[in-house]
Amino acid sequence: MSAEIICVGTELLLGEILNSNAQYLAQELAQLGIPHYHQNVVGDNPQRIQEVIDIASQRSSILIFTGGLGPTPDDLTTDAIAQFFHTPLIENPEVIKDITAKFASRGREMTPNNRKQALIPTGAEVLPNPSGTAPGMIWQPRPGLTLFTFPGVPSELKLMWRETAVPYLKQQGWGREIIYSRTLRFWGIGESALATKVSAFFDLKTPTVAPYASKGEVRLRVSTQAESETAARSIIAPVEEQLREIAGEDYFGFDEDTLASVVGKLLEQRNQTLSVAESCTGGGLGASLTQTPGSSHYFKGGVIAYENEVKLKLLGVNPATLEQLGAVSAEIAQQMAKGVRDALGTDYGIAITGIAGPGGGTEEKPVGLVYVGLASPDGKVESWEYRFGDRTRDFIRYLSTCHTLDRLRRVLLACQPSVT
Amino acid sequence: MSAEIICVGTELLLGEILNSNAQYLAQELAQLGIPHYHQNVVGDNPQRIQEVIDIASQRSSILIFTGGLGPTPDDLTTDAIAQFFHTPLIENPEVIKDITAKFASRGREMTPNNRKQALIPTGAEVLPNPSGTAPGMIWQPRPGLTLFTFPGVPSELKLMWRETAVPYLKQQGWGREIIYSRTLRFWGIGESALATKVSAFFDLKTPTVAPYASKGEVRLRVSTQAESETAARSIIAPVEEQLREIAGEDYFGFDEDTLASVVGKLLEQRNQTLSVAESCTGGGLGASLTQTPGSSHYFKGGVIAYENEVKLKLLGVNPATLEQLGAVSAEIAQQMAKGVRDALGTDYGIAITGIAGPGGGTEEKPVGLVYVGLASPDGKVESWEYRFGDRTRDFIRYLSTCHTLDRLRRVLLACQPSVT
Repeated sequence: MSAEIICVGTELLLGEILNSNAQYLAQELAQLGIPHYHQNVVGDNPQRIQEVIDIASQRSSILIFTGGLGPTPDDLTTDAIAQFFHTPLIENPEVIKDITAKFASRGREMTPNNRKQALIPTGAEVLPNPSGTAPGMIWQPRPGLTLFTFPGVPSELKLMWRETAVPYLKQQGWGREIIYSRTLRFWGIGESALATKVSAFFDLKTPTVAPYASKGEVRLRVSTQAESETAARSIIAPVEEQLREIAGEDYFGFDEDTLASVVGKLLEQRNQTLSVAESCTGGGLGASLTQTPGSSHYFKGGVIAYENEVKLKLLGVNPATLEQLGAVSAEIAQQMAKGVRDALGTDYGIAITGIAGPGGGTEEKPVGLVYVGLASPDGKVESWEYRFGDRTRDFIRYLSTCHTLDRLRRVLLACQPSVT
Repeated sequence: MSAEIICVGTELLLGEILNSNAQYLAQELAQLGIPHYHQNVVGDNPQRIQEVIDIASQRSSILIFTGGLGPTPDDLTTDAIAQFFHTPLIENPEVIKDITAKFASRGREMTPNNRKQALIPTGAEVLPNPSGTAPGMIWQPRPGLTLFTFPGVPSELKLMWRETAVPYLKQQGWGREIIYSRTLRFWGIGESALATKVSAFFDLKTPTVAPYASKGEVRLRVSTQAESETAARSIIAPVEEQLREIAGEDYFGFDEDTLASVVGKLLEQRNQTLSVAESCTGGGLGASLTQTPGSSHYFKGGVIAYENEVKLKLLGVNPATLEQLGAVSAEIAQQMAKGVRDALGTDYGIAITGIAGPGGGTEEKPVGLVYVGLASPDGKVESWEYRFGDRTRDFIRYLSTCHTLDRLRRVLLACQPSVT
C-alpha cells in the first residue's frame, strides 16, 4: 500500500511554476503515515497522462492527481482517467448546481465550458471544492486502487485535501501513527551559530532535531512518530524546552507564529498599542502586522511617508534635520517614530527609513542601508542601523520589516505584562 | 528525442524541501529547445531508482538525474545507474585529487566516505563540480541514450549545468531552436469567459496558446519554437496583438508586469501622482505599489487608517457619516480617498475599507465586503463595492489590493497621457 503523486500541467514541464503542490501533498502523506515512493509530472497530453496512469497504477494503490481540472480544452485529467479505465463520464447535477450558484454569487454568468467541470466517471464520488469551480473526485476504478483528483490551484487543493481527503483516508485506517513535528523559529542568530550551540541534539533518535535556514530566519524541526498528537507532544516537549532555553531571546515562536503575530501577542498582554511610519517598506510593515486576525486590538495604523514632504507634513519631521542628514539617517528614523506615535496617540511608534535599491545608493549611503526608529511609552526614542548589502529590493524590504519587528519584540520582552 | 528529469531524494518524498531543481532544469531545457515530457521523484532506494531508470530509458533519450551523489550511505544514484546498465564502477584519480585539494583548502581532512564520490561507471566522463565535492557524470551507456548526474544542492547543480552540460548539449546540436513564451496577463475576467472569447486560438500550432488561472488572474501563454528570440517574437507578435485586441481592457500586461507596475507606468506617462488610504489591507496596497523600483516618481505615500480614530484625525472623515454608515461603506471609502488626496496633495487618492475576516462579519456586512474609493484630479470621487465571499483573510486582502489597482488602471487608461 503506497500513494503516488501525479501532477499534470505543461506549465510545470516548462518550468513556469514551482511544484509546491507536490511538497504539500508529500508532507501531508507523511503526516498520515502513508508510504509514498513516487512523484510524476506530465504535460497536458492525453496519451502521456494515460501512460503515466498505467505505470503508477501497477506500483501504487493510491493515486493523487493535481491539475488539469479546469474548464478549458487543455484540462484533460478527468477525461484521461476515464478513458484509461474505459468508464463513461456523466454530468453530475450537484456540481452543475454548485457552479451555477458560485457564478451567480460573483455576479458572473456560467459559460458552456464550465459544464465540462461537472463531468466525472460513472461510479466516482465528487470531492467538493468550497472555494473554486473545479471539483475533484474520489474513485475506486478497481478494488485496491483509489484515485483522488485536485485542481492545480494550491489554495483550493489544500482546502479540499483537509476537508474531504484527510477524513476519507482516516476512515480507511490511515493516520493511526502520525509523524508530528514542531518547528522552532529563531531570529537574530545565524544557522551555524545556532547549530553549534545545539549540536548535541542532532544525534537524538526520538525526537529528531534538524536545522534549516530560510530568508534570514533559522528553524529547528523537532519530529517524532507517535500514536497521537498528544503522545508526540509529550515526546517533543522536554527537548523543545531545552532548545528554547539554550537559544534565549533568539527564539521567537513555533510553527505558524510570525514575528508580527508574536509582537501582537506581547502588545496585547501589555494592553499597549502601536503605530508605524514607513518609508522604504511602503506599507509592508503595516501589512505584515495586520495579517494577524484581531490585530486591531493593538495596531492603530500609520503613515506611509514615501516622499519627504509626507514625512514633514504628517510626521512633523524637522526640515533642517532632513536637509542636513538626509531621509536615510538615524535621526530621521527617530523623528518618524516619535512623530507617528504622537500623531496616532499610541504607546509605541516604529519607523523604517532606508534605501531598498536597486538605484538610489551612494558610497556614503549604499543600497541596503536601513534605519529603524522606536519611540516608547516612557518617552525614550531609539534607533538602529542595518546594512543589508547588495541584496534584491524585495529581500531588503523583507529584512527591514523583520528586523524592525524583532527589535520591538525584544523591547517588549524586557517589560512586564500589565496585570489587569 | 526528449529529456526526462529524475530527482532522487527521500527528503523530496517527505516534503521537506521544494523541488526547485526540477523547475530550473525545466526552464533550461525549454531554453535549449529540448522537448521534455516527464519528471520523476524517487527516494533513496536502489531498487526503485533502477525501476525508474527502466521506465525513463524506454521513453526518453536524455536522462537528467539530481541528488544522491553525496558521500553518505544513502547516496545511491551512481551505484544504481551502474548496476542497471551492468557496468562496473572505477575510481577516477582526477576526482580523488580534486576532492583531496578541496578538503585541504578548507582545512579539513578527507574522510574514507568521500572516496565513494570518485567512483563512476567505466566509460563515463566526469562532470566537474567547481564548488562542491560531489562531481557528476555524462555517460552514454548505449547509443541514443545520454545520462547526466548532478548533486542536489541547487547552487552546485546550476553552476555545473551552465559550465559543462549546456556546452555539451549545444555541441550535440541542441539550442539551435529555442522555446520562447510570452505570458499575457488579464484581470477582471474569468478563465472560462476569456477562454470562450479566444477559443479559436487554442487550435493554433505555431504559436500555441494556452490559458491558466491563478488567484483571480487569468493568463494566456503564447509559445513557439524558433531559431532565436527575435524570430520567436515575430511569430508571437501578431497573435499577441489579436489576443490583446479581443480582451480589450481586461488585458493588463505581460510576463513580469504586475497591476502595480502597470499603474505606475500609466501614472508616469501622465505625470501624475498617487496616495493611498488603507484600512483592511493595512499597508498592503502601498507595499505593492512600492515593490516597483522608481515608484517614488508617482507614489507619495499614504495613511494606514486601521482604527476609526485615524480615519477621523488624518483623513478628515466625517464623524457623523462614520457613526451612521459604519467604516465599511461606500461613503467612507470615498471620504478616505478624498481625504488622503487632500492631505498628501496628489493627483489621485485611492482608499480601501472592508472586512477581511475571519471575524467581524455581520449578516448585513459579511466577511469579504470591501469598498474601494477613488478621488481623481477633476474632483470626481467614486466608489465600488466588492463581495469576495467566504475566502481567507490573506486572499481577501490580496483581492482588495488587486481590484483597487485595476480600478485605477482602467480610470487612467480612459485619460490621455499628458504631452510634455
